Amino acid sequence: MSYNELRKDYLLDRWVVIATQRARRPTDFTKTQKPPQTQNTATCPMCPGNEHMTPPAILIYQEHNEHITKTQDKNGNRTKNWQIRVIPNLYPAFTPPTHKITQTQIKENNSFAYAVGHHEVIIESPNHNEHPANASLPQLTLVINAYIDRLKTLSQKPYVKYVSIFRNHGIEAGASLSHAHSQLIATPFTPKTVQEEIKTSKHYYKQHKTCKFCDIIKQEQKSPRHILENKHYTVFAPYASINPLEFWILPKQHQPTLEDMTKTQITAFAQTLKTTLNALKTLVNDPPYNYGFHLTTDKKEEKYYHWHLEVYPKLAIWAGFEKSTGIYINTITPETTAETLRKTISA
Amino acid sequence: MSYNELRKDYLLDRWVVIATQRARRPTDFTKTQKPPQTQNTATCPMCPGNEHMTPPAILIYQEHNEHITKTQDKNGNRTKNWQIRVIPNLYPAFTPPTHKITQTQIKENNSFAYAVGHHEVIIESPNHNEHPANASLPQLTLVINAYIDRLKTLSQKPYVKYVSIFRNHGIEAGASLSHAHSQLIATPFTPKTVQEEIKTSKHYYKQHKTCKFCDIIKQEQKSPRHILENKHYTVFAPYASINPLEFWILPKQHQPTLEDMTKTQITAFAQTLKTTLNALKTLVNDPPYNYGFHLTTDKKEEKYYHWHLEVYPKLAIWAGFEKSTGIYINTITPETTAETLRKTISA
Repeated sequence: MSYNELRKDYLLDRWVVIATQRARRPTDFTKTQKPPQTQNTATCPMCPGNEHMTPPAILIYQEHNEHITKTQDKNGNRTKNWQIRVIPNLYPAFTPPTHKITQTQIKENNSFAYAVGHHEVIIESPNHNEHPANASLPQLTLVINAYIDRLKTLSQKPYVKYVSIFRNHGIEAGASLSHAHSQLIATPFTPKTVQEEIKTSKHYYKQHKTCKFCDIIKQEQKSPRHILENKHYTVFAPYASINPLEFWILPKQHQPTLEDMTKTQITAFAQTLKTTLNALKTLVNDPPYNYGFHLTTDKKEEKYYHWHLEVYPKLAIWAGFEKSTGIYINTITPETTAETLRKTISA
Repeated sequence: MSYNELRKDYLLDRWVVIATQRARRPTDFTKTQKPPQTQNTATCPMCPGNEHMTPPAILIYQEHNEHITKTQDKNGNRTKNWQIRVIPNLYPAFTPPTHKITQTQIKENNSFAYAVGHHEVIIESPNHNEHPANASLPQLTLVINAYIDRLKTLSQKPYVKYVSIFRNHGIEAGASLSHAHSQLIATPFTPKTVQEEIKTSKHYYKQHKTCKFCDIIKQEQKSPRHILENKHYTVFAPYASINPLEFWILPKQHQPTLEDMTKTQITAFAQTLKTTLNALKTLVNDPPYNYGFHLTTDKKEEKYYHWHLEVYPKLAIWAGFEKSTGIYINTITPETTAETLRKTISA
């Protein structure tokens, strides 16, 4: 039968129409790209020299004789000569409690809660344009280290139940400043998307005594959606990708959270991230994208939940149909995504 | 406590951060608008004279001596002098079965189905720019009539379980052609968003013996989120709006689907839609938006489900946080949305 395919996500009750009948080529999207965002580094609040344009840094990495030391801004001063700078978001969605607050006080009833938590910006480099696709490997390794450092600190706070680490690239993907940066939001409950994944993988674990994600890896390594493989990571276009050129990166070793990563794994992850994002950039002329980590820091969930990174290139618009039904339409098949990204990587 | 508010939707397990601490004014968004989309009507496939650039029409409304007659294109001809033209989408996401197909054949397993259904375009007027905000009332009444006509026909097909009627306005909201048009997609299962609403309202009905939506109407009529009231409809900014300037239109009489609307109700709905969309256009300089109807055509659900229209202005970008967590951030409170739309309507 020659119809488009409706595919369901591995874990979520989320359907997507994969337009096999009118599949487009990734390069169809290239021409729609706008000229790159430019910003005067003199006025960029994230550039070196402009530290006073931001709140004091919570965490700073500095290099001394090839060693990284960690510090933070104190007494209204702003530390110079940094490699990584983590600052509170000037317009936070979530804010730390001003005094001791209980979970009951945060969530007053079933439909209201206070947005207690943290909202931080990770400035990835003193160089305005050192985005992951073109970052030096040591620098990108520092970025991942900073993610882990903040995750460790924030996940221990009694009012924090989840830490979302994400990156918006390009103005069309919501990056209002073009200096290379990521963000982090700590929330007082586990967000719905991750909660649903946890629920499904728990159920799967009870039935099969294996991790759903470990099994997905084995399955996708043999599929036409497989993109890249190295000692520590596997990359594939998910079966029910909701975005053109979407790909996921998963650790091959079962790991619930980034906090468990070894030094070697961190470097290997930085390399994997750089290689895949560089292929995306090459293939469709530096498209806007969002990426987000999915993880759990809850010990009860460590057997069945498996951290991973989902990269969502922004090459299409979710419109009235998607927004009123929850069904997505993707005009590039994940099989084509994988094939073209594989070729770009090996070119 | 001075935090942003986390609010949950009336029916969905969907949370939004309402940025009360850094609330923006609707007019903050005005300057971000781009110049209006222009298209040469000579090359517009939806303009009169270009009917051969589209597939044959499934339904045509023609005016004869102040009466509307219904017809369709036959034998490769294209009917001229139409008021409304409904055509199959040239690039359909869902397509009709080529031969008899059972529900079991459509859904092969839990994660795969054939995208069997319909995907149609409703050309709302022979006038390129007759968008609802500025349409003549008789013309907009014809548009609603066309929605109902197609809904009646398609919901009776054995392989159709749901009909989504939606409109994308402006290129940033996914309207690739600027001629005034809506779309309709008939799907082989009830989409997740509506399914969740049905489940919650069913549960509510069992507990309270009343319709959840009827109770929401009573509650919001007295709230600062109330926007407009007439004999047949109520309009408000929902408590947990996920978009700046979002509003919903609900029939005050309990009605599960558009098919039950009387002639008077159809005209009153066209007037309500025009008034509110015109206020939105006036307030923020014709912003892009999506709207979608939520309804049920299943008799079993008619007691507790209540059709409504959700209008989503596109004034912000859903980025990495929204996409990886399912939590939204809205920088205009629904209370401000309602206040400014009320003032614009009465100005």
